[in-house]
Amino acid sequence: MTVSDAGEFGLLARIFPRLPQGPVSLLGPGDDAAVVAAPDRRVVATTDLLLEGRHFRQDWSTPYDVGRKAAAQNLADVAAMGAVPTALLVGLACPPTTPLTWPEGFADGLRDECGLVGASVVGGDLSKSDAIVVSITALGDLSGRPPVTRSGAGPGDVVAVAGRLGWSAGGYAVLSRGFRTPRALVEAHLRPEPPYACGPAAAALGATAMCDVSDGLVADLGHVAKASRVCVEIDTKVFEITRQMSDAALALGQDPLRWVLAGGEDHALAATFPAGVELPPEWLVIGRITRGEGVLVDGETYANGGFDHFR
Amino acid sequence: MTVSDAGEFGLLARIFPRLPQGPVSLLGPGDDAAVVAAPDRRVVATTDLLLEGRHFRQDWSTPYDVGRKAAAQNLADVAAMGAVPTALLVGLACPPTTPLTWPEGFADGLRDECGLVGASVVGGDLSKSDAIVVSITALGDLSGRPPVTRSGAGPGDVVAVAGRLGWSAGGYAVLSRGFRTPRALVEAHLRPEPPYACGPAAAALGATAMCDVSDGLVADLGHVAKASRVCVEIDTKVFEITRQMSDAALALGQDPLRWVLAGGEDHALAATFPAGVELPPEWLVIGRITRGEGVLVDGETYANGGFDHFR
Repeated sequence: MTVSDAGEFGLLARIFPRLPQGPVSLLGPGDDAAVVAAPDRRVVATTDLLLEGRHFRQDWSTPYDVGRKAAAQNLADVAAMGAVPTALLVGLACPPTTPLTWPEGFADGLRDECGLVGASVVGGDLSKSDAIVVSITALGDLSGRPPVTRSGAGPGDVVAVAGRLGWSAGGYAVLSRGFRTPRALVEAHLRPEPPYACGPAAAALGATAMCDVSDGLVADLGHVAKASRVCVEIDTKVFEITRQMSDAALALGQDPLRWVLAGGEDHALAATFPAGVELPPEWLVIGRITRGEGVLVDGETYANGGFDHFR
Repeated sequence: MTVSDAGEFGLLARIFPRLPQGPVSLLGPGDDAAVVAAPDRRVVATTDLLLEGRHFRQDWSTPYDVGRKAAAQNLADVAAMGAVPTALLVGLACPPTTPLTWPEGFADGLRDECGLVGASVVGGDLSKSDAIVVSITALGDLSGRPPVTRSGAGPGDVVAVAGRLGWSAGGYAVLSRGFRTPRALVEAHLRPEPPYACGPAAAALGATAMCDVSDGLVADLGHVAKASRVCVEIDTKVFEITRQMSDAALALGQDPLRWVLAGGEDHALAATFPAGVELPPEWLVIGRITRGEGVLVDGETYANGGFDHFR
């Protein structure tokens, strides 16, 4: 059965029951717009577009994986502001011949990723297209705290990361060569596991700046350096390269440290904290903020370039 | 100069200055997420996907038109809940060869439509694609009032519309035959003019149900009838068919009343009010709510079918 067989309203009838509405969803899907609680009188909001063939591949990712990852990358952006995610709005365009199991699995993936943080899918839009297009908007609540932006890092701060680094890039490298193992790396690429709770926790600990690592650690900390007008210094000796990563990198003729420094899509959180703050074990201190500009890796500039969507 | 020549960050540097931030934008574009004021502790949210070739054509619409219309259709959804729009988030994917003037004109269109209601474009996402894809999410504030849903209409209520009906469908019919006049109809299709202020005003007047007319009057009132478990009765004699519409319809061999009843995309507002309410002149009473189901046009069912995105 395809989405064309079901029709728009038949498809909605299949999707709505898969999307439980939590307490922050004051009015869920089915009207002109949703209504979401914003207890703190402010709402954090971020959006992403994901295109089949560019942001995901149907031969790599199941519909469930796409739902998980699309939700994760936006929920992580909310967490990176120090906020708790509350709701997603989702646009989905797909060919009429798409099996009904695609949007169903996709909705299940959205639901399960939202479930990790207590958020709900409160609304969306369906359309016909030649290839699958997904748009996601995530909303969140700051619980009375100021947002943690990229611009507050100051000399003397420590730099720390929570979450995995390099796993998604390793998985991408493995998949690109046609392999499906090591499974841990492949799964990390298909379904990132952002450390959501570390975002609001970092804000409560007094984080001075924060970002999610989506384009690569050096590139994303480069945005922090630029916005804060400081230099970010990273020491690579602190990074743990797992045996799995070093073996996979060796087999592929690649450098696992490059996956850690330049690979994106793990959606780790990188933050700066005042010196002397006692950080919980989820955080790994990887460097410090100094006067200057840009990012120094073991004291040198790093030939990275970052990711430019148009180049 | 193309978007590829400018690169992602060059493009952003051109777009950000075009998007002034109003007082509700507490943190605008450039961080992991935006922060928007939600004074009423709730936020209204809605999203749409627009695909080149399906929702707009580059030979019909300028980039500025696409920006205006993409913003309008989402801002109208917010108004249809009785809320005041506050912010937009915008995803844009385009081919690397796209002239830089495209996203610039598009951003100008977003800005000008937002300007009509005091909203700001607070964030977004850029990506590469084969054809242009636009996603828009609009947020809004209910100013302490309950949202006006589709489900509150009751027998005895009057049905009224604010805004134009049939103009966009007329413009589409004209453009489809390769004509560019009458200009008023063509422009109505390319740049709808939703009666934004009538949304919150209707809520203040005690509207029992409301929706925006995006799929066609009969189809959209059908959603109200279903959600409210009532019958919506429409009298067509009250509709004004302008000379321009009747002349254009005659020339094209079409029925202008069908444009009014089945044409969408004017983003008029349709609402139900308790009998006896005194409506301002923006509202045209077109019928009443009775016990029963579905929509009756001059006492008969209307062969309309509505718009199904997958059929």
